[in-house]
Amino acid sequence: MKLQNIDLTGYPSSRKIYMEGEIYPDLRVAMRSINLLPTVKIEDGLRVEYPNAPVTVYDTSGPYTDPSYVVDINRGLPRLRENWVIERDDTLLLDSITSDYGKARLADPTLDSIRFPLFNPPRVAAEGRRVTQMAYARQGIVTREMEYVAIRENLNNRELGIPSYITPEFVRQEVAAGRAVIPGNINHPEAEPMVIGERFAVKLNTNIGNSALSSGIDEEVAKAVWSCYWGGDTLMDLSTGDNIHETREWIIRNCPVPVGTVPIYQALEKVNGRVADLSWEIYRDTLIEQCEQGVDYFTIHAGVLKAHAPLIAGRLTGCVSRGGSIMSQWTVIHDCESFLYTHFDEICEILARYDVAVSLGDGMRPGSIHDANDEAQFLELDVLGQLTERAWAHDVQVLIEGPGHVPMHKIAENMTRQKVKCHGAPFYTLGPLTTDIAPAYDHITSAIGAAQIAWLGTAMICYVTPKEHLSLPTLDDVRDGVITYKIAAHAADLAKGLPGADVRDNALSKARFDFRWKDQFNLSLDPEKARRFYMESYRHDAEGDERFCTMCGPNFCAMRISRNINSECAKS
Amino acid sequence: MKLQNIDLTGYPSSRKIYMEGEIYPDLRVAMRSINLLPTVKIEDGLRVEYPNAPVTVYDTSGPYTDPSYVVDINRGLPRLRENWVIERDDTLLLDSITSDYGKARLADPTLDSIRFPLFNPPRVAAEGRRVTQMAYARQGIVTREMEYVAIRENLNNRELGIPSYITPEFVRQEVAAGRAVIPGNINHPEAEPMVIGERFAVKLNTNIGNSALSSGIDEEVAKAVWSCYWGGDTLMDLSTGDNIHETREWIIRNCPVPVGTVPIYQALEKVNGRVADLSWEIYRDTLIEQCEQGVDYFTIHAGVLKAHAPLIAGRLTGCVSRGGSIMSQWTVIHDCESFLYTHFDEICEILARYDVAVSLGDGMRPGSIHDANDEAQFLELDVLGQLTERAWAHDVQVLIEGPGHVPMHKIAENMTRQKVKCHGAPFYTLGPLTTDIAPAYDHITSAIGAAQIAWLGTAMICYVTPKEHLSLPTLDDVRDGVITYKIAAHAADLAKGLPGADVRDNALSKARFDFRWKDQFNLSLDPEKARRFYMESYRHDAEGDERFCTMCGPNFCAMRISRNINSECAKS
Repeated sequence: MKLQNIDLTGYPSSRKIYMEGEIYPDLRVAMRSINLLPTVKIEDGLRVEYPNAPVTVYDTSGPYTDPSYVVDINRGLPRLRENWVIERDDTLLLDSITSDYGKARLADPTLDSIRFPLFNPPRVAAEGRRVTQMAYARQGIVTREMEYVAIRENLNNRELGIPSYITPEFVRQEVAAGRAVIPGNINHPEAEPMVIGERFAVKLNTNIGNSALSSGIDEEVAKAVWSCYWGGDTLMDLSTGDNIHETREWIIRNCPVPVGTVPIYQALEKVNGRVADLSWEIYRDTLIEQCEQGVDYFTIHAGVLKAHAPLIAGRLTGCVSRGGSIMSQWTVIHDCESFLYTHFDEICEILARYDVAVSLGDGMRPGSIHDANDEAQFLELDVLGQLTERAWAHDVQVLIEGPGHVPMHKIAENMTRQKVKCHGAPFYTLGPLTTDIAPAYDHITSAIGAAQIAWLGTAMICYVTPKEHLSLPTLDDVRDGVITYKIAAHAADLAKGLPGADVRDNALSKARFDFRWKDQFNLSLDPEKARRFYMESYRHDAEGDERFCTMCGPNFCAMRISRNINSECAKS
Repeated sequence: MKLQNIDLTGYPSSRKIYMEGEIYPDLRVAMRSINLLPTVKIEDGLRVEYPNAPVTVYDTSGPYTDPSYVVDINRGLPRLRENWVIERDDTLLLDSITSDYGKARLADPTLDSIRFPLFNPPRVAAEGRRVTQMAYARQGIVTREMEYVAIRENLNNRELGIPSYITPEFVRQEVAAGRAVIPGNINHPEAEPMVIGERFAVKLNTNIGNSALSSGIDEEVAKAVWSCYWGGDTLMDLSTGDNIHETREWIIRNCPVPVGTVPIYQALEKVNGRVADLSWEIYRDTLIEQCEQGVDYFTIHAGVLKAHAPLIAGRLTGCVSRGGSIMSQWTVIHDCESFLYTHFDEICEILARYDVAVSLGDGMRPGSIHDANDEAQFLELDVLGQLTERAWAHDVQVLIEGPGHVPMHKIAENMTRQKVKCHGAPFYTLGPLTTDIAPAYDHITSAIGAAQIAWLGTAMICYVTPKEHLSLPTLDDVRDGVITYKIAAHAADLAKGLPGADVRDNALSKARFDFRWKDQFNLSLDPEKARRFYMESYRHDAEGDERFCTMCGPNFCAMRISRNINSECAKS
């Protein structure tokens, strides 16, 4: 299989750099450094150049943007963390996979043509060992992953001398307290460590995945790489169509960021979509299958209880969570409590063996402005708080998922309640969408809400693309969704006062004032589109160094006039 | 001249309706009514239809969407308010225009080919009369304009029995107190009355206009109609290129919403771009020229004082307001106070004769995150507060313009200070943009800020298109900018608890839950795009009534499962 034709040359004047660790000098933390042109001034009739320091930006694109790396999706990415795991000497390498379903798929010769060609035997914790970052953090151990993310979060701070509270020890404390999560299944060593927590840069998750009606493996792998390229920090594979198992393998092996799934989707496919036929045994086998493949976090709707089902009828849009609606229906059909709830400790025991984080799904999230902050939603949140403590008792890292559709004046209550009820576990929200009336623009209705809830403390925001409510996203939609959410996340970082967050803004604005157009483009989240928009309207052979733009023309350029004012003021 | 080929059929199942007045029974207030399909249920094996009431939405498109109206831009729109003005019997009809510049243009035969073909002699207040809505309001008069906007703001409330504080008398009180503005030059009778104020629906302004480098008259007229069609509440013509006078005449005669300008732009063109040559006399003649054409509000940067100029040098991006930078430079060159400030009372006397509102420009608005909320910005705001009271002394209606680039945590201070310093005059902001790092996506960086500041009390938000900072917007950019700002404005209306604001959200969400796809599209801000996105991914001959979508496919449709849960719960 080949990586579909996606253009990975959208960041001109950038180069991949690697920062070394101090505790672990062998660490090479990947970042992108944007080279800038000098500021040119005319002083006493002479042209003087003042150099501008390069700006370092957070880089989620993985090896794909390292010119020394030869992309081959049939081999997968380099296994960056494999030796880190081995060195800890608390895991076993299995001979083969152990889930019934995984074994059956492996034995099926009709799948040979779509199967990922290399087989990496899975790893599991040694008997009695918990191999989660939380377990290490609680023991006082600063892992390589913790130092990696501390360096990654600091970006320009070290070079520019900006003081920052983010140290490897600070990361350890946050992970130990459950306020931060470093997703990192020991079977997904290809992923570069990243951290999700209120005191760190706001992260964004992207969703991809096929449905019964569309999309193939190569398309999904391309979407995964594309979403990381533009800035996705984590990736959920929400496939519900054919060959979920094989699609997931291709994605994980080629994905430089943590991968999440919703295991109940695949469990339901295994029983041919018949909710009544779901069982703990099938679900458990699915968990093991996916743990061994390397999924880094599972959305588990264990807070949807039997008692909540009758509350759905009072809503305008019912239950809009796929996992939540499945589990709710199951409790009604069988007239008994959800097996995700009753077996939650067993689930955590499994997850702790691979360091899979649990993302407690909000099955009762509101699907409309009308249903926001209602009883069904907040009752479930209380349950998620209890489950958080149960997971932490197993040293399992926890994220809490949040809404949904929420008007602006009801957003703060979500964040406040989540913090109180869920004991500081990172909040991970979908938007929220602040109005229902703009299908085809729901990346925007939701970015408005996402920026606000992230400012208030949400650690990760799940992107919404322009196709939300309408169909599956294309590559262009993924790009639009990611950039829109990078904006929301960055606006929140600025508002939270994250150390160094404004370095890139200031550099871009200085470039704008200097008429360094190329630098303005190169510093932007989407240099290719910014440059294209500029060039489209330009009627000359623009070189990108004109001292005005087509919006105002030369006479009306306020920035040009500002320079005149400054020099006239300086004279007088 | 012909209206360029723009598609004005984007609102299916809608019809233009007109609501009558009570105080003035001859009023016909234009709205759009969206017809809905019935909700279909199967009860005891029988198909039962429950009708859904039509939803009425605010309609800024003017006669262009009235099927009985034949578009002819050479005639201009019907002069809706002409008799209202005549009936008040406080104005004179002039024989001809009186500005020197206007007369010269009229006498120039080389302009015949681009001149609007009909001549409407201008109207002016009779000696000693003030013909502003504020003057009437303060005298206790409820004008036709006031009742029109009261009806327009209430939308579905009357029919649905939703209590609302918005009555014609309430409008009068708000206008009298200066907390609301009804822009309406007596020489722009084509415009439908609308109100700008914190207690009313948030409005959005669009900017169009050519620059020295691009765009012709027909393009600008098409953009004006297009922006009204998608939802622009007011329109600023920011032309700085050729034939500004004639371009403006075409726009005003064909524009169903109030039109604003920045007269200093044209004044500067008249002196060939030489700031030093600007004078009060040239500016005064420009004001009269534009008052007689029918401009409804002028942005006047009268708060940029000589003392502020040295503050520009301390900024990262100087002065980014075109008008502000021009006036600042003028004060420095001439070493004397701005003529806009020293002649402000004369300006107000002129404006009061036509009911042109003054929009006090924020010449010192920050052009970058770095410069937000700085001394230059807030010193100017203090001056705008003084000017507000001077304008009100002339019964001139006042808007206050606001930033610009502001990170989220600094937005609230802008609104709070503006309310205090400017005595409750409506705030009218550009965005604000919440980060500088996303050129090509600044409609989104700014919608995040616009929604927040509108929620906090800003009455009108000025749209930003994806081309901001890069070039002039195309028709597609205008549509994207308008819809994005409709979203921000509506999200704020919901958060403010505006009576009836959620009627459309609830109707759309109900349609979504009912799988009434066509209704979902028709109720959305951009039905054409929503439908197109849905259809693109659909592989069958979709009829828009499938009971699931391609995002999840049939097995994973949470809404379908919700219905099953509800019926199962109901059985037990």
